[in-house]
Amino acid sequence: MTQRQMHLGLFLLGTGSHSAGWRHPGAVDTFQDFSAIQRIGASAERGLFDLIFMGDNLNADPRAHPSYTLRLEPLTLLSALATGTHRIGLGATVSTTYSDPFTVARAFASLDHISGGRAAWNAVTTSNAAVGANFGTVHPDHARRYEMAGEFVDVVKGLWDCWDDDAVVADKVGGLYIDPSKVHALRHAGEFFKVEGPLNIGRAPQGRPVVLQAGGSNAGLQLAARTADVVFSVVQDYDEARASYADLKSRLPQFGRSARDVTVLPGVMPVVGRTDREAREKLNQLQAYIGTETAMAVLSERFGHDFSGYALDAPVPELALPDTYHAFTRVLLAKARREQMTLRDLYSLTAAARGHWVLCGSPETIADTLQTWFEGHAADGFNIMPPYFHEGFDDFIDGVVPILQERGLFRTRYEGSTLRDHLGLSRPAPVR
Amino acid sequence: MTQRQMHLGLFLLGTGSHSAGWRHPGAVDTFQDFSAIQRIGASAERGLFDLIFMGDNLNADPRAHPSYTLRLEPLTLLSALATGTHRIGLGATVSTTYSDPFTVARAFASLDHISGGRAAWNAVTTSNAAVGANFGTVHPDHARRYEMAGEFVDVVKGLWDCWDDDAVVADKVGGLYIDPSKVHALRHAGEFFKVEGPLNIGRAPQGRPVVLQAGGSNAGLQLAARTADVVFSVVQDYDEARASYADLKSRLPQFGRSARDVTVLPGVMPVVGRTDREAREKLNQLQAYIGTETAMAVLSERFGHDFSGYALDAPVPELALPDTYHAFTRVLLAKARREQMTLRDLYSLTAAARGHWVLCGSPETIADTLQTWFEGHAADGFNIMPPYFHEGFDDFIDGVVPILQERGLFRTRYEGSTLRDHLGLSRPAPVR
Repeated sequence: MTQRQMHLGLFLLGTGSHSAGWRHPGAVDTFQDFSAIQRIGASAERGLFDLIFMGDNLNADPRAHPSYTLRLEPLTLLSALATGTHRIGLGATVSTTYSDPFTVARAFASLDHISGGRAAWNAVTTSNAAVGANFGTVHPDHARRYEMAGEFVDVVKGLWDCWDDDAVVADKVGGLYIDPSKVHALRHAGEFFKVEGPLNIGRAPQGRPVVLQAGGSNAGLQLAARTADVVFSVVQDYDEARASYADLKSRLPQFGRSARDVTVLPGVMPVVGRTDREAREKLNQLQAYIGTETAMAVLSERFGHDFSGYALDAPVPELALPDTYHAFTRVLLAKARREQMTLRDLYSLTAAARGHWVLCGSPETIADTLQTWFEGHAADGFNIMPPYFHEGFDDFIDGVVPILQERGLFRTRYEGSTLRDHLGLSRPAPVR
Repeated sequence: MTQRQMHLGLFLLGTGSHSAGWRHPGAVDTFQDFSAIQRIGASAERGLFDLIFMGDNLNADPRAHPSYTLRLEPLTLLSALATGTHRIGLGATVSTTYSDPFTVARAFASLDHISGGRAAWNAVTTSNAAVGANFGTVHPDHARRYEMAGEFVDVVKGLWDCWDDDAVVADKVGGLYIDPSKVHALRHAGEFFKVEGPLNIGRAPQGRPVVLQAGGSNAGLQLAARTADVVFSVVQDYDEARASYADLKSRLPQFGRSARDVTVLPGVMPVVGRTDREAREKLNQLQAYIGTETAMAVLSERFGHDFSGYALDAPVPELALPDTYHAFTRVLLAKARREQMTLRDLYSLTAAARGHWVLCGSPETIADTLQTWFEGHAADGFNIMPPYFHEGFDDFIDGVVPILQERGLFRTRYEGSTLRDHLGLSRPAPVR
């Protein structure tokens, strides 16, 4: 029997996932410099990662952290990355709250054709209410956003299924290019969307591009259990990760799916040193770049709550935050109470990886921890969030990946050519 | 004084612009094969073209011509082409009728960053009423579409102007990434769109990406005169082209613009042979691939009128078509009446290049004609529509371009690095 192996994603956010990582003297600027991002793509492929994944945000507040304010648009970016890479998956975030399903379905089908079967759509709902003002609408509430998202994903999958694999005949002699009997309208008429179809692009190399999701609320987890192929989770410790993993997998049978159908990847910011001590010093150096103002801004953004005016060295205040906000909120507040943090502790933690798990140590230490999590069914792999680029990522690829490979925990070459191949997912038949 | 020189665009449509070009034994399939399109991009850059331009359509009728039914999505395609090319402009069509200005503005700004200043947006209105059913809305009428388009283009340009050139400070030591005083909201509240801004991407290398337009109605020409940098025109003969060129240029002063601000490129399908006779044989061969059914479908699509049931060898019927439909309609009907065509003649002409001008001859003949048009102020250059790929395009690049260069009518190297450079347009300052 083949050993179960980890899956690794690269989370591409701003200039790295540490909120002050861009200030590191060696850090490259990846907000808008495509050549720097090309090098990152090549590194991720050198590291045999399953996919590169790009987050998104649909407004700009120039006083907020630059990661939320400035970025290349994910689909154009990932499509440009498709040509310099050959095997790695390409995941772009597009909101179900502020897009059209027809446009989204065709863009990802197009990316799948261009990349030879490597496209993935991170189907998110937009939580930031300020975005509504950029689209001339009132921001829908949480419940409504998830109802829209569920229907949106169904429509997109339906559009991906409009063309049979053999609909394109391209018979030069007979003069028939498309066999109309193999192209099917969708005729969707739901609560939020009316989409006739068919899509104006043939069936994608993967059949359907891979669907990623990251929602942490109950509605988000139900949607993921029903429709996602990969789930990015937000966790801070092992027990929590195991519980979260078990929770998601337990939701699958009600939708006729099995545990293997969904790959769960907790986000982790690895800070790698030659020794544990050197790694800790690296993290301390990064933390020293965080200004109080920046940290408070990140904290306020993550929690959707204005923390300015609170005492920094008093315990974290009790907050009545809605259950439906970011998974970050719940996870970080739980950790803060467990560890009796001050607001200063919480903002340092939050500003480090914006609420994600920080894992600091030598390559062996990091590999040990990832192995424990993986074998303990806290994860099917990890969404790697380098603190900055390129060194902060190369440290992981050159230090940690070889150890995981030696232990048989990670691939030593790409076996297939599509993202579905890497994830061990079959190519789906059209459902109508 | 430097000699005035032509501008050349490549119109990328389906498998080539001849409606049966895909049936040519040597034709490659460019509907969904990105590697074939990469080779075309490289050819266009070898030919020192100003830009590659991709048309679009937002629905699929599997019984219609495949060019209207099946294609890669333009933005993902052009972005992927950005990496294999270095100087050539990259123009993608995105409808103002079925998109959001915020999304369009950021995608083209992103493409402009990725490509180093080579992005162009072909801002169209969608004339095909069937598209509404893919977006859950009733298709707006012609007048309303152009009102929307005007406001849409203004919003997109406004979003492109939100960031000052020096807004990104990236001061690692001081810890300031963005200077908030140099990022400006848009606060647009118009009849069709409400967009707060600012855009979430910094000012594009070109300041604003280039705006292309192709409308032929009065409303379309007024919009182009007010907002476009490049206009693709549809013409069938020299006198008509001169009149159309003069008409457009005469509309510019009312908007405070001069003739040099807008580049007019009539579409032309060149069929190049070693001799005029060989070229004519090539065209005849292509025409022989057109089936009556295909031709009638293309004719009906272009005219928005069902021609099935009309007698093929009777004169072209009198039709009461709205003034506001395709420019093709007006131009083709005028030519049909002038030349006393039968319906069979008209469908042959229409099916050849879908209503565009067909220019058939030896490289010298074609160069002579293009020179006459250019020097006679019927054109500032041409939008080249190869009948099929690759041969149908290589014939032009290897045969016609060198003659135009010898005559001093076309560049022998790229002087600048951005599309604005190629077009002789300055980089605009932000307008607020």
